Amino acid sequence: MFPATRVAELLGTRYPIVQAPMAGGFTTPELVAAVSNAGGLGSIGAALLAPEELRDAIAVVRGLTDKPFGVNLFAPLPRAEVDAEAVAALSAVLAPLRAELGLPEPEGAPSPPPSIVTDQVAVAAEERVPVFSFTFGIPPFETVKEAGAVILGTATTAAEAAELEEQGVDAVVVQGSEAGGHRGTFLSSFDQSLVGGIALVPQVVDRVAVPVLLAGGIMDGRGIAAALALGAEGVQLGTAFLGCPESGTPELHRRALAGSSDDATAVTAVFSGRPARAIRGSFVDVIEESGVHPLPFPLQGMATMDIRNAAAADGRMDLLFMLAGQGAGMVRSLPAGELVETLVHETMETIREMSR
Amino acid sequence: MFPATRVAELLGTRYPIVQAPMAGGFTTPELVAAVSNAGGLGSIGAALLAPEELRDAIAVVRGLTDKPFGVNLFAPLPRAEVDAEAVAALSAVLAPLRAELGLPEPEGAPSPPPSIVTDQVAVAAEERVPVFSFTFGIPPFETVKEAGAVILGTATTAAEAAELEEQGVDAVVVQGSEAGGHRGTFLSSFDQSLVGGIALVPQVVDRVAVPVLLAGGIMDGRGIAAALALGAEGVQLGTAFLGCPESGTPELHRRALAGSSDDATAVTAVFSGRPARAIRGSFVDVIEESGVHPLPFPLQGMATMDIRNAAAADGRMDLLFMLAGQGAGMVRSLPAGELVETLVHETMETIREMSR
Repeated sequence: MFPATRVAELLGTRYPIVQAPMAGGFTTPELVAAVSNAGGLGSIGAALLAPEELRDAIAVVRGLTDKPFGVNLFAPLPRAEVDAEAVAALSAVLAPLRAELGLPEPEGAPSPPPSIVTDQVAVAAEERVPVFSFTFGIPPFETVKEAGAVILGTATTAAEAAELEEQGVDAVVVQGSEAGGHRGTFLSSFDQSLVGGIALVPQVVDRVAVPVLLAGGIMDGRGIAAALALGAEGVQLGTAFLGCPESGTPELHRRALAGSSDDATAVTAVFSGRPARAIRGSFVDVIEESGVHPLPFPLQGMATMDIRNAAAADGRMDLLFMLAGQGAGMVRSLPAGELVETLVHETMETIREMSR
Repeated sequence: MFPATRVAELLGTRYPIVQAPMAGGFTTPELVAAVSNAGGLGSIGAALLAPEELRDAIAVVRGLTDKPFGVNLFAPLPRAEVDAEAVAALSAVLAPLRAELGLPEPEGAPSPPPSIVTDQVAVAAEERVPVFSFTFGIPPFETVKEAGAVILGTATTAAEAAELEEQGVDAVVVQGSEAGGHRGTFLSSFDQSLVGGIALVPQVVDRVAVPVLLAGGIMDGRGIAAALALGAEGVQLGTAFLGCPESGTPELHRRALAGSSDDATAVTAVFSGRPARAIRGSFVDVIEESGVHPLPFPLQGMATMDIRNAAAADGRMDLLFMLAGQGAGMVRSLPAGELVETLVHETMETIREMSR
């Protein structure tokens, strides 16, 4: 038997295994539904979806599963300020790369897009999504909660977990330093809040009463059993699902994950303006070695998008923004439903081995 | 029953629990012997001991226990180059701090001490120590192995673990990013080899055939059970033993550990010249914000020793070099033997809970 946890009960799933919401086209409705149908919780990484796109995605998922699923958004951030000097400094550093790729120099500065969080949250409430999760801070979630959703917040330290509990979340996803993707940090500094799961989980569960899920570096049943041993009552896996055929992971990204090792990633703000763990390559080196500061999130991503598009077309893996946790080298290419079943089997097997 | 592992069998101990060797006066013979007498493996952090001091320490430990114990040394490093300009730049940054503490400006530059590793290794061989471990690379250990010692090397990545196995170690201690103290990294870059235990252990055990111990962030039975779930067959705890009355931990250091939180530490080279995880304070901030580069190990430590000595006398915790892992906030002040028994009990309890 898989260990009984408050997380599975809360989410209404068979297993306390969440497929991490990854914004940017990875979490297709097919992936989300396959995970939920297998007894986990599929999650739509909806932060970059326009409100009507989110409504459509929810409808497609509902057409593929009658099981619970989640929708994840970014908390609103202060509007990024455009600094013309910083934009020019960045362009100067990237000029040789643009010349190499045959790209023209960018004209003008990127302009911060208007925030759509309020409208996205309204869709989540109207659609009565079963689970609503968020990262980068705390968006106003009262309407979604009143509409019946289970609320999950993201923390990177025990203090952040305590703040989420205070604000009324039903459970906390703690993001260990191993995790791929953007850091959810909102109270501590990005540097100091890179805490490994082994040290993080016990300190969080000793601090809060709500159940805790661990995200970061978990790729198989060994990681899930470890999370449960530490006191987590659930897990969230992102990188592990990037290899599934149902995910929207581009082919070059899949290849990079499969070929990576434990020291292949870095936490860097060079791609988007906000620290994120991704596979290290020459784009990271060029900007970090130049000493230029990345533009604030999301301007850095907008200002460098042309380079990534050209790199993708040219097969230049070293220039792409490929999110990956420190466990990336263990990625598998199983269909999502089969992956969930395998994770469950491995977890029970690991626990059985330990208790022999 | 505590799970049977190859590590306990190899070490000749009742439990696969190693008290980490911490150089600098922490691992008193009383601490080492208490851990070994309780069924763990006590270890002498001998890197800073002169050969005859090491011989004496071994004799005292042997007078207190007839159980196996370990001796740990640093691998020889390339001789540090003294750069007069770098020394002057550092002195300029530290001048206000020295004025504040009433210290004179240092005269001249620190001179790299002659290496004593060869003589230390000779003592370990002559004394036929039961277990010999090392970090920072691979010292010549043939004579110690021939004298009957079990050999443990330290790795921070799967590639380093594979190299240690290739060179003939009996087991590998993998140091997760959570670990307090100096990083053992010797092949990868210090930045990229900060891998959390959850991601690190499975990738190492999938790569090497020798048994693996996890170090980093483990403070209680939850962490030990997690390490075993991940595939480790033993654990090494440092910070957890700093709170024991038998350890040589200074009072200010004990207080700082007890008052710390998951985001209280940083990996920094400002204290010794080599990256180490320690409690963050204003000494770290002053040097990091100045942009000055620390001198190479061990010159940085020699060049700043006067400040730490004065800070200790003045109770200035913010200036001290206080090694600590990310689990420091969970430190306990139990006697070492009682701590080992508690860890064993908690581990078995955690496994029992999981398998219910």
